[in-house]
Amino acid sequence: MAKIHKVSPFAPAGPAKLPPLSGVRLAVAGAGIKYAGRTDVLLAIFPEGTQAGGVLTRSKTSSAPVDWCRTQLQHGEARALVVNSGNANAFTGWRGRDAVKATAEFAAEAAGCTPEQVFIASTGVIGEPLDASKFSGVLTKMAAHAREDLWTEAARAIMTTDTFPKLATRRALIGGVPVTLNGIAKGSGMIAPDMATMLAFIVTDAPIEAHALTVLCQRHAGPTFNSITVDSDTSTSDTLLIFATGEAAHRGAPRIGRADDPEAAGFSAALLHLMYDLSMQVVKDGEGISKLMTIHVEGAECDAAARKIGLAIGNSPLVKTAIAGEDANWGRIVAAVGKSGEAADRDRLAIWFGDIQVARDGLRHPDYQEAAGSEYVKGREIEIRVDAGTGGPGRATVWASDLTHEYIAINADYRS
Amino acid sequence: MAKIHKVSPFAPAGPAKLPPLSGVRLAVAGAGIKYAGRTDVLLAIFPEGTQAGGVLTRSKTSSAPVDWCRTQLQHGEARALVVNSGNANAFTGWRGRDAVKATAEFAAEAAGCTPEQVFIASTGVIGEPLDASKFSGVLTKMAAHAREDLWTEAARAIMTTDTFPKLATRRALIGGVPVTLNGIAKGSGMIAPDMATMLAFIVTDAPIEAHALTVLCQRHAGPTFNSITVDSDTSTSDTLLIFATGEAAHRGAPRIGRADDPEAAGFSAALLHLMYDLSMQVVKDGEGISKLMTIHVEGAECDAAARKIGLAIGNSPLVKTAIAGEDANWGRIVAAVGKSGEAADRDRLAIWFGDIQVARDGLRHPDYQEAAGSEYVKGREIEIRVDAGTGGPGRATVWASDLTHEYIAINADYRS
Repeated sequence: MAKIHKVSPFAPAGPAKLPPLSGVRLAVAGAGIKYAGRTDVLLAIFPEGTQAGGVLTRSKTSSAPVDWCRTQLQHGEARALVVNSGNANAFTGWRGRDAVKATAEFAAEAAGCTPEQVFIASTGVIGEPLDASKFSGVLTKMAAHAREDLWTEAARAIMTTDTFPKLATRRALIGGVPVTLNGIAKGSGMIAPDMATMLAFIVTDAPIEAHALTVLCQRHAGPTFNSITVDSDTSTSDTLLIFATGEAAHRGAPRIGRADDPEAAGFSAALLHLMYDLSMQVVKDGEGISKLMTIHVEGAECDAAARKIGLAIGNSPLVKTAIAGEDANWGRIVAAVGKSGEAADRDRLAIWFGDIQVARDGLRHPDYQEAAGSEYVKGREIEIRVDAGTGGPGRATVWASDLTHEYIAINADYRS
Repeated sequence: MAKIHKVSPFAPAGPAKLPPLSGVRLAVAGAGIKYAGRTDVLLAIFPEGTQAGGVLTRSKTSSAPVDWCRTQLQHGEARALVVNSGNANAFTGWRGRDAVKATAEFAAEAAGCTPEQVFIASTGVIGEPLDASKFSGVLTKMAAHAREDLWTEAARAIMTTDTFPKLATRRALIGGVPVTLNGIAKGSGMIAPDMATMLAFIVTDAPIEAHALTVLCQRHAGPTFNSITVDSDTSTSDTLLIFATGEAAHRGAPRIGRADDPEAAGFSAALLHLMYDLSMQVVKDGEGISKLMTIHVEGAECDAAARKIGLAIGNSPLVKTAIAGEDANWGRIVAAVGKSGEAADRDRLAIWFGDIQVARDGLRHPDYQEAAGSEYVKGREIEIRVDAGTGGPGRATVWASDLTHEYIAINADYRS
């Protein structure tokens, strides 16, 4: 990036180490999409028979690569994935569509497949034409050198304002046969849950049909990528794709055709954990983050209402700035609940900071000491619990970053 | 306030000078609600027969004074208005209700009316009990000294983080008889259109029935207070009240019973202008504002859709920070349109900065020069025009402040 910002205080000590997946070859390169001297293209090559599922942004101004992936998910056959950072190829009209098509053709030639078997994702500035010719020689060279052990490099190549690469891995059993799930993601800004982070890619050797993969992704996106927020801004490019090579079938794993196949239960749980892990890494690298808010909402009419209340709190600039300033200004939480539009009983509302009850029955708790709240919000991880007071069964958890000077600094000069 | 922040660059050279309204007496005092040494209470006393209308916040956690006003608007008779800053008396449960009732009783005694004829508004911190006994002697003293020429002092007394007092006045003819409308407002933070600014009070000598006043307020709130946004946070206390003394009837003005009475047309237009003037002062004093965005949306399916698209742009932290940073990053406008959820045709979308066309037909305009856009956003008032491309008749204008370091500084330590 043009500017180096300080690394998130929530960055892990080091990136998770991902095991190789048989037949999944990776390569990264610098194609000079926007900046010289950094890797900005990732090519992943999958073995024959790989199935693809996923979820894509609901933005009405979705990017050309998102449109392309939406089409290809209908057949669900994948042999390659091309991801570039530096340019989102969004709002680029027919040129954007041509650029995606050309990229798919270059990658197809490099990987030995059809263009329709190539999935594409782009992240970066919106509205600038993407010169696909930059990929032409590059992808062929990348294919020639692709290796199975480049997961960390792959995660780095897709970063934009991210301050650390995001990787996670999980194992599961299908019919007693171990399978592996590897995932990488990028996020950081323009993060709002509708659907997901900007980009996340998961690869597994499990033998699962495309449609089942998509159903599982959709189901698990709710409590993971759709429950995190940095700045309430939904991207044109949000993409979560999962690729299943099926390699484990050679080791005896049964083929999974439906998401609800009992044999898929362990895989489904591992996928959920993996998506949770990646989504937490994304929110913890929220632009300018100094504190992480975990917001539990209960007593709402239904889970969707609870999530909406949680997001109203997590997206409120006034809550976010109060937390950033270590001000236990819980009145702003009340106001955020009120603006969510969801049913809440003001006179039965209750609020906690961690284990400290701040309010109950619609007013400040008699035992609440301001000093205790002030001390609590000095911590780096802030738990906020709200009982919306409707008596309903709805509950949800939402994770959000705070709003700091650093966020302003990062975003007031992103393109400069 | 605890901290003095720099005055908004949009502050007028001086406050508008409001003429006295016969029989409308004002007084301000320092009751020590939160800070010592500043005026924090406003008492307005109206002549017998004064009618009241208004619009109140739609927040689900509305304050005790808002609930009180909602009840009193049903009969629409007003003899006094008490406004305090420093404490919003919101989320204060039964204590809050008791405090409002006690305040109404004190004011009724001071003004010589019933408690139900007293309207009350409070602004400031949420969740702190308000000690109404502080008003007890104060209101009686204020009533004794109330005068018709204290409009500027009144506007100052209701300020919180406002950097300048907000006043406006207009004249109109009803049946050929001149009438006057005086208005004051406070705003600045927690400003989102649902409904209005935090507090605005309008007083007129026109003879208009309570219900007609409410209908006119509701109608005009749409293109004024409901079209401005600072931080997307809706207050628990948003209150717009209008009081009509009817004094002009003694000078021959006909009484208006219905908002659509043709005799009310001039008054309605003047009220609209007054509300527009006040709402512009509120957004121009948006916390930390450095630039004002005027966002015109056309080509949407309907006016409501256009306003929602405009607000998605005006509330986007990424658009707001780009403008603050003088970065003509119009791709973020595309993303904001996409996240609004309203119909927009990505491939027919068009965008302008002032008169400079940036994009058309879903991609960058061939003649657009980045340098021209960059130069344009150096201005203090930024006009953004978006054609959503649906071919529909919907249009709306929304006004928004940018998002600056100053906003963070103000809100990270508001209570400290």
